[in-house]
Amino acid sequence: MQTNQGIWHNARIAPAGDPDHVIEDGAIAVRDGVIAWIGSVESMPAEFAESALPRHDVGGQWITPGLIDCHTHLVYGGTRADEFALRLAGASYTEIAQRGGGIVSTVRATRLADEESLFRQAARRLEALLAEGVTAIEIKSGYGLDLPTERKMLRVARRLGVSYPVSVVTTFLGAHALPLEYQGRADDYISLVCHEMLPALHDEGLVDAVDVFCENIGFSLAQSERVFEAAAKLGLPVKMHAEQLSNLGGTQLAARYRALSVDHLEHLSEADVLAMQQSGTVAVLLPGAYYFIRETKQPPIELLRQYRIPMAIATDHNPGTSPTTSLLLMLNMSCTLFRLTVAEALLGVTANAARALGKADTHGLLAAGRAADFAIWSVESLAELAYWSGLNPCSAVIRGGVAAA
Amino acid sequence: MQTNQGIWHNARIAPAGDPDHVIEDGAIAVRDGVIAWIGSVESMPAEFAESALPRHDVGGQWITPGLIDCHTHLVYGGTRADEFALRLAGASYTEIAQRGGGIVSTVRATRLADEESLFRQAARRLEALLAEGVTAIEIKSGYGLDLPTERKMLRVARRLGVSYPVSVVTTFLGAHALPLEYQGRADDYISLVCHEMLPALHDEGLVDAVDVFCENIGFSLAQSERVFEAAAKLGLPVKMHAEQLSNLGGTQLAARYRALSVDHLEHLSEADVLAMQQSGTVAVLLPGAYYFIRETKQPPIELLRQYRIPMAIATDHNPGTSPTTSLLLMLNMSCTLFRLTVAEALLGVTANAARALGKADTHGLLAAGRAADFAIWSVESLAELAYWSGLNPCSAVIRGGVAAA
Ligand SMILES: [Zn+2]
Ligand SMILES: [Zn+2]
Repeated sequence: MQTNQGIWHNARIAPAGDPDHVIEDGAIAVRDGVIAWIGSVESMPAEFAESALPRHDVGGQWITPGLIDCHTHLVYGGTRADEFALRLAGASYTEIAQRGGGIVSTVRATRLADEESLFRQAARRLEALLAEGVTAIEIKSGYGLDLPTERKMLRVARRLGVSYPVSVVTTFLGAHALPLEYQGRADDYISLVCHEMLPALHDEGLVDAVDVFCENIGFSLAQSERVFEAAAKLGLPVKMHAEQLSNLGGTQLAARYRALSVDHLEHLSEADVLAMQQSGTVAVLLPGAYYFIRETKQPPIELLRQYRIPMAIATDHNPGTSPTTSLLLMLNMSCTLFRLTVAEALLGVTANAARALGKADTHGLLAAGRAADFAIWSVESLAELAYWSGLNPCSAVIRGGVAAA
Repeated sequence: MQTNQGIWHNARIAPAGDPDHVIEDGAIAVRDGVIAWIGSVESMPAEFAESALPRHDVGGQWITPGLIDCHTHLVYGGTRADEFALRLAGASYTEIAQRGGGIVSTVRATRLADEESLFRQAARRLEALLAEGVTAIEIKSGYGLDLPTERKMLRVARRLGVSYPVSVVTTFLGAHALPLEYQGRADDYISLVCHEMLPALHDEGLVDAVDVFCENIGFSLAQSERVFEAAAKLGLPVKMHAEQLSNLGGTQLAARYRALSVDHLEHLSEADVLAMQQSGTVAVLLPGAYYFIRETKQPPIELLRQYRIPMAIATDHNPGTSPTTSLLLMLNMSCTLFRLTVAEALLGVTANAARALGKADTHGLLAAGRAADFAIWSVESLAELAYWSGLNPCSAVIRGGVAAA
């Protein structure tokens, strides 16, 4: 029988994911799915040392917080594999668009798919993420672009969180792209997003946060602000796809709305970074998209360090620009491509990722009173989590005190 | 009970891995571990259609040849994860060398490890490769740089091929690096390689091919030729790590010795490609190393296409410059970074990889009389094998007609 309590001991524990702050010969006592106590085994209070809690010898393996993927578009219909192949075979963007490719094709497939099919397609991708130690994930809508389909996506996201041992945070991204039926009427579409879609989905309890794709090929600064304003009225936190392909000023707008995070950031300026510092906004780096679209402009890591902006890393899983289901590969890419240190990368999928989801008080750090979500790793050194690619050293996942994998 | 015979049917089969040449509603009949017949199910001869061979309904999934990783350094002691972390934290190459890092550290760890430990360490990496449909792999020596350790590595490689459902091709790479004890005496070391190590290991049946790292930081053209000469005397095929960091002329030397393959090739010239065409040498592309060392010079894919040089793709798994255990990720990287088409990438891990191992007559292509080594994929389109990263759609592997995974 599975219980949500126990003592995991004989572990090397990195409570914040940071390999430089380690509890040697550590133990974690869990009661009712929450960490009751954590520390080195010789300092364990009698209350736990003499308890009848079931004991699990971790055999000297490493323990980190469960990993958090704080930016994904995991729920959608179809793949874009054939478009990927066509482009490599020399088809132009125009030809692909003429063949019905691009985001339009994902919107079409997502609208057509029923909830069960969307669930099954996303479940497979989620399973791959969870096998690598993920215990919390953000999932965005944004391939419906109409109320029924945005609802369907968010309902699937919620169902995934019920069916799998993972905390799901939903984000409404109605302002992801302009649907075909609103061509030339972007402001009207934003009205729909603000006045119909968001209030309805919020009423149904489907929205934890609100996101906007602020870009030349997305929505303008003014349109983004209308969405943020609508979110603020409902008391919902905001975030933004910002400064990926150009600098529109989205980050400074987001900072004014105290955004949880701004994401991508290849074209971020120093003024933007200063604004983020003042608003406490997390910088979410998405190396999978950077890699997949062969971007060459890097996010300004050195500036982010100087201003001590918390950096998170996520898969940005999506069918068009980041079809990856490996958060460990994102660690590797953030180090290899962006030259993050291993400690920065690990903090980026633990403590800082929790902060990007507004869950810093409960997740991303192993401490008494917090969720007993942790991953056990069969490695000599935590650097191996970022060093290997394709090798999954996760030997067990505990989520809410229950063995999940 | 496992048998090495059966009929797999209701499959979409790409006999050469090429998604443009497909048998729809296909079947494969296997007897004694060898393909007895392959074709569309309605053309199946009565001999098989009416046979008592066990039947396996593949449910409309795709079948390709088992994947072949034709260039790996899979057997070694230790990892270089801490060196990876140190470098990201700003340590210079000199500092890392002073701390005993670099290839020297792998040679030390490999010399110290006993055969059992080397086997266990490599087995874990091999298991990751096999889970993605790999049924044949090349494994090089080259971290011993003395006879006992080179022997130990090759023995472990052979044992892996006995213990796991995979065909292992061994390559003696004594000329990988100059061991510390031979500093300033490279020619003496090459004499050891040619006159003692190679003949002894060949006598013991441990050597299927001979490789040289021909590079400014490796061995010169003249030294490489001495090794090739020694291999030729023993009737062993040769291959070469060539033109990775500079153009030393290794490829043209290798072509004169009718090398099976030349590998890396970032600095390959048109004259080199012409020489390869005349010798029938395969170009082995190693995108994992290109990615990991952040190389910017690409191998000349267009030239290789023009001259119709067969291109293979491999992991180059090694602890210093390519710590990857995912051949599917290499498909993704060869498409994303080198702009190979999906068909080129798939041929690169099937038919052309077999050719790089001198096994073109038996492996890498599904046809009557050949090894019944194939992978079954749960995908809509074979392009998904290169499109996803981190998602393993391999649902079963048949090796020698036996279900392996
Ligand atoms: Zn995104
Ligand atoms: Zn190599």
